[in-house]
Amino acid sequence: MDENLLNPHGGDIYRASRVYGCSKEEILDYSANINPLGVPSGLKQKLIAGIDDLVNYPDPYCNGLRENISQYLGIRSENIVAGNGASEVIFLLFEALKLKSVMIPSPTFCEYAKAAERYGTEVYYHELKEETGYELNMELLIRQMDSMAYKIDAVILCNPNNPTSTLVDRSDLLRLIDYASGKNIYVIVDEAFIELTDGGNSNSVADCIVKYCNLFIIRAFTKLFAIPGLRLGYGIGSPDVINALWEKKLLWSVNTLALCVGEFLTDSGEYLRETTKWLVEEKEWFYSQLKAIKNIKVFEPKTNFVLVKLPDEGLTSGMLKDKLASRGVLIRDAGNFVFLNDRFIRIAVKDRKSNLRFLKVFEQVLQTINA
Amino acid sequence: MDENLLNPHGGDIYRASRVYGCSKEEILDYSANINPLGVPSGLKQKLIAGIDDLVNYPDPYCNGLRENISQYLGIRSENIVAGNGASEVIFLLFEALKLKSVMIPSPTFCEYAKAAERYGTEVYYHELKEETGYELNMELLIRQMDSMAYKIDAVILCNPNNPTSTLVDRSDLLRLIDYASGKNIYVIVDEAFIELTDGGNSNSVADCIVKYCNLFIIRAFTKLFAIPGLRLGYGIGSPDVINALWEKKLLWSVNTLALCVGEFLTDSGEYLRETTKWLVEEKEWFYSQLKAIKNIKVFEPKTNFVLVKLPDEGLTSGMLKDKLASRGVLIRDAGNFVFLNDRFIRIAVKDRKSNLRFLKVFEQVLQTINA
Repeated sequence: MDENLLNPHGGDIYRASRVYGCSKEEILDYSANINPLGVPSGLKQKLIAGIDDLVNYPDPYCNGLRENISQYLGIRSENIVAGNGASEVIFLLFEALKLKSVMIPSPTFCEYAKAAERYGTEVYYHELKEETGYELNMELLIRQMDSMAYKIDAVILCNPNNPTSTLVDRSDLLRLIDYASGKNIYVIVDEAFIELTDGGNSNSVADCIVKYCNLFIIRAFTKLFAIPGLRLGYGIGSPDVINALWEKKLLWSVNTLALCVGEFLTDSGEYLRETTKWLVEEKEWFYSQLKAIKNIKVFEPKTNFVLVKLPDEGLTSGMLKDKLASRGVLIRDAGNFVFLNDRFIRIAVKDRKSNLRFLKVFEQVLQTINA
Repeated sequence: MDENLLNPHGGDIYRASRVYGCSKEEILDYSANINPLGVPSGLKQKLIAGIDDLVNYPDPYCNGLRENISQYLGIRSENIVAGNGASEVIFLLFEALKLKSVMIPSPTFCEYAKAAERYGTEVYYHELKEETGYELNMELLIRQMDSMAYKIDAVILCNPNNPTSTLVDRSDLLRLIDYASGKNIYVIVDEAFIELTDGGNSNSVADCIVKYCNLFIIRAFTKLFAIPGLRLGYGIGSPDVINALWEKKLLWSVNTLALCVGEFLTDSGEYLRETTKWLVEEKEWFYSQLKAIKNIKVFEPKTNFVLVKLPDEGLTSGMLKDKLASRGVLIRDAGNFVFLNDRFIRIAVKDRKSNLRFLKVFEQVLQTINA
């Protein structure tokens, strides 16, 4: 199998350690956007206690978890489906809704297009422009959707958007959902990073699920609780859509330990406050430090990663990625995102100590090239 | 959603606890066939250490795990694919091989037919007969396959078979594989319980994978290491088939902690010996105790569960299940297996203490009914 082809994402420290010969423990992984506060200690305790429950099959309907999410977001359990990461929810959605065509504002997370290809869904792109910092212009998106000869079944927005780190206002989103509701078009909002924005859940449209049955929201605890290894995502939608997903879902895809996250949710207040404190301070500081580096263009981040454009001349994103990796630092080569090219990289925001170390290596490598 | 419809399997202690009002901790779960020695303590230690690795995405290609399985079974890594339980492997197989038709000796595990329905595969059944204790007669199976006007693409055998607890000899299996090889028919053998038979891995056909590219084997650590909550299965096949499965697989469906099982495999000798000791003794003892109960027919078990037939008159399997559940004892109502009916139940073999407790409640309930 061709691992590069099958996994275009960041965060593969196993492959990096094989390819570049750096030890897994020493790797500074700026290719995956994970809360640097790490797995919450309260959650670790739940996980250790949960090991004794592994002798039983997981609850296939994740009732306890859904009740906890229900309280966390103030929505009903019947509006929630759980999955093996946001990925399973995305693929289930395409399979269950039998979407014929979908509009994807891009550059964005590539799993939507991959799921579309898998289920034979035609993809139309709405191009986000570099000139406007990849901000979504809702007026233009709605105009494009309205002018299409062929009716689309759904529009998918990643909010905040990966890899551009832009955020669409709630009011703008509500305009889209309202417009689409009248046209029988699903609006799918991927809020995998929503807690990692200034304002957090107040930027979410989860509370609108009761009013709009054409709205579906993809979420995960992966980034927020630093648990990509545990596999836990969820979807929020109308009971009809949610039931259609349950019917297609692999029965026990969410493991018993992932279900422990629900129990931790009710105790997560302190961790969430610390996360907000880190995010507000570090995102701005890291952005200002990156901006001070000559010859690169840095797009203002609204969440815990930054899109950076390299100079037109000189090294490509792939070359830079290789050079950094040989020094134990991983970045995401963003060259394979639709509408981006081999000038673009994506960098995570981590804790101050790591960020300082990253900046030092990053600047050194950039200078070597420019010299 | 209709939980009963979506989950026809045993082992749902969460639903049982809601429906019958018994506490999860007090339930005696004879509906799932899990090694009663419990999660090995050596594995528990690996899992606790693995919690710190949750901050990284799992290795999507499970390289470490596959190397460990490779050593455990004496086969090559390229012949192995890992999955979220045997279930994911079964569904991937139907999707990747695009099987048009399949022959299923039955009664057997219902996930094969479920996967067939999902991917539009036509199912032909080969009926195993009560008169011969549901033993597979290889001569008859091959004759049926040979006489069919319509060519079938694959035959699926569960070995040992769920729910009949019968075991097909290796020599018989090899005859089938050899016959099918000449006809371009896949032979899919589900060995999820193979370690829990007298002789264990010596009953497996995993070593034949190099010689026969029409052979595919489904395996799992679920029952052996008592970890249904962790979600880990694997498939063994030719590199072409294995690669086809990797391409369809949800990228990170096997979580980081499930991958720890690989590390434990190399230390599992003592646990495997204890398991064999328990199995040999307890299976025979429990069988003899069950046989002594009046009015029921007990089929000789070759693995850690027993098929039982209730008297023609009187209570149905569903009624018995309810009566036992109200006393905190779960059994598997086997009435929904193809070719079985509401006279059949399946019972796990557990440790002596639990088995004594089970037998007491079981006999009491049967007597109440007969009185």
